[in-house]
Amino acid sequence: MYRRYGERRVLTPGPTALPQWVREALAKETTNPDLDPQFFQLYQDAVDMLKRLIGTERGALYIWAGEAMLGLEAAVANAVKPGTKVLVVDNGVYGSGFAELVKMYGGRPVAMGLDWRRAADPAAVERALEREKDVEVVTLVHCDTPSAVYNGLEEVAKIVSSRGALLIVDAVSSIGADRLEFDGWGVGVMIGGSQKALNAPPGLTIMAVSRAALDRSREVGRGSYYMSYEVWEEWLGRGGFPYTMPDVLVYALRESLRRIHEEGLPSVFQRHRAAREAVRRGLAAMGLELYPACAECNCPTATAFKPPVPPAELRRVAWEKYGVLIAGSWGPLEGQLARIGHMGVQASLDYVTTALAAVGASLRDLGVSVDVGKALEAAVEAFR
Amino acid sequence: MYRRYGERRVLTPGPTALPQWVREALAKETTNPDLDPQFFQLYQDAVDMLKRLIGTERGALYIWAGEAMLGLEAAVANAVKPGTKVLVVDNGVYGSGFAELVKMYGGRPVAMGLDWRRAADPAAVERALEREKDVEVVTLVHCDTPSAVYNGLEEVAKIVSSRGALLIVDAVSSIGADRLEFDGWGVGVMIGGSQKALNAPPGLTIMAVSRAALDRSREVGRGSYYMSYEVWEEWLGRGGFPYTMPDVLVYALRESLRRIHEEGLPSVFQRHRAAREAVRRGLAAMGLELYPACAECNCPTATAFKPPVPPAELRRVAWEKYGVLIAGSWGPLEGQLARIGHMGVQASLDYVTTALAAVGASLRDLGVSVDVGKALEAAVEAFR
Repeated sequence: MYRRYGERRVLTPGPTALPQWVREALAKETTNPDLDPQFFQLYQDAVDMLKRLIGTERGALYIWAGEAMLGLEAAVANAVKPGTKVLVVDNGVYGSGFAELVKMYGGRPVAMGLDWRRAADPAAVERALEREKDVEVVTLVHCDTPSAVYNGLEEVAKIVSSRGALLIVDAVSSIGADRLEFDGWGVGVMIGGSQKALNAPPGLTIMAVSRAALDRSREVGRGSYYMSYEVWEEWLGRGGFPYTMPDVLVYALRESLRRIHEEGLPSVFQRHRAAREAVRRGLAAMGLELYPACAECNCPTATAFKPPVPPAELRRVAWEKYGVLIAGSWGPLEGQLARIGHMGVQASLDYVTTALAAVGASLRDLGVSVDVGKALEAAVEAFR
Repeated sequence: MYRRYGERRVLTPGPTALPQWVREALAKETTNPDLDPQFFQLYQDAVDMLKRLIGTERGALYIWAGEAMLGLEAAVANAVKPGTKVLVVDNGVYGSGFAELVKMYGGRPVAMGLDWRRAADPAAVERALEREKDVEVVTLVHCDTPSAVYNGLEEVAKIVSSRGALLIVDAVSSIGADRLEFDGWGVGVMIGGSQKALNAPPGLTIMAVSRAALDRSREVGRGSYYMSYEVWEEWLGRGGFPYTMPDVLVYALRESLRRIHEEGLPSVFQRHRAAREAVRRGLAAMGLELYPACAECNCPTATAFKPPVPPAELRRVAWEKYGVLIAGSWGPLEGQLARIGHMGVQASLDYVTTALAAVGASLRDLGVSVDVGKALEAAVEAFR
């Protein structure tokens, strides 16, 4: 046994490790984001890069000061009024959690009772919409990271929009990692967060809002200033913001977006698929049980597995002895699963092999015999 | 004429310049604020330092991810229900603006029609409360920075609490610069912002909430997750947060608070008074008209004046030629006033003389003859 030395490595499904370029952007000279006209331009640059990332030209896109939870609440607040029937695609902790927000705003959530280890079946969504004729809003989580379950957004979005309902998508853990076509698929509202695949610090939420969602928000007429689309439309139209923007976080986000586009979206998306493959194959090679039932229903940004020891023990050894931070889970899955985040800069040979090596070494320390060489061999092959 | 060279200097009434120690804190190693138990301790340190800064042991204090506007809205949302009568102390842009939030949440704002160049007269507040017997909530801005007008919080708070009404105080521009006794004066809710005298980047709002305000929020039962005191009480009680905290901003805020307490509060408050005196005397020595009618009704954190040229022109020259950023004003005062922020690190000989020198030089460039030597002489004397 030796005393841990070296940099610590974060492999959680957000907040992620911050790449060096993001850290440098955080330490950039600041002025006053309200008064420096260059800041408004810089904000717009970030907005434009986000729009390209999620495939929207027609939607509005705001970067707000608040964690993604703010965006999720705002999406519901602006779409749901007392009595609104909302179909909640509930195949995960976050997916099911939408029902609470819907109730908070007076809506009537309809749960589907889905299997948490599989992607939501688009045909089941279609049948539910057929059955529940007056559904006006549908909520879906693209990557439900507490279980690492992944939904086929394209198929569901097309079904929902063809029926004239408004789709709210939690894409917090997929923006920057996966192909998104906001306009093409007919998404109503899409929410993102700075601290996930975008590799910036937590503190910004991203709101993409279709024209239909904007119209609906006017109709709903929710009385809030901080969560209002209209307030943002008004202020941005005049070249300003409704409140002072967190400039350092916007600098960080913008630099990260610049790097993502520099790499090129096809490469970014492919790299995340490779990371998923590497982590799944590596964990499987160590004989560990993966939670998502298939590769296609596993998020490209995180993988959850059932370790043969309590997840908290595994995490403690990995962190204290090897300086590698992986995650546990939440809600009903707490205490059952461990998770490796492979999003943004973490979706790389470097981070993924580090995570697998630390999981393997920690399991051995805890008395579980695993084949780490085979795991790393599989991971390396997945990245080639 | 020469091309500007050197560091730019920000002297706006928030966001402020970031001291070197804050910038270093921003570039600190990050882990995962949800999973690293050290982060919870660090957040608590910041909370404890804030509590000492505003004089509360009995109140709850939360640091939220959002700009101070979020805190102002939350204070109203948690205290006002349809029909609630709210006395709005309206001697400034922000003071008067509270009425809009009150209406948004169904309350009935009662305006006082006060003079914007003077502190609100506590006796007038008392008379208004006498007249409007069913006032349940009073709103007050401590430092109304768009005009730099300063209210005597202690006197007003004691009157309001003696009548059993709930006082909501916007102390965004005074926390960290001025003596505050949250418990002793009987304040209900106090809102702060990271980017003002606390010299951290924008993005955090500070909510101090009395037991009475907590009780009232339960009674009001506002349906929001992001703005709920109860949600925070519940999560903090379990050693966690309702959403991922913006760790880098908390690091920055904590380091700034550490420096403030290291200096010692009596010195901090005295330094802000000296800065106010220096700026007022310096501007007066240049023959410029100050907006607040007296030193005692001028914020310790900002000073507003009427330049003999359009404020935008003065600001443009100061920024483009001398690299010094001062502010204009807002709302009905837009186009009339220029403002110098002297909060936090800006409340120093260094920054204040820089601002006066840049204002003087810019006015000369714009054809106004001013005695800059006399202005700087007066400023230096005020700091001795």
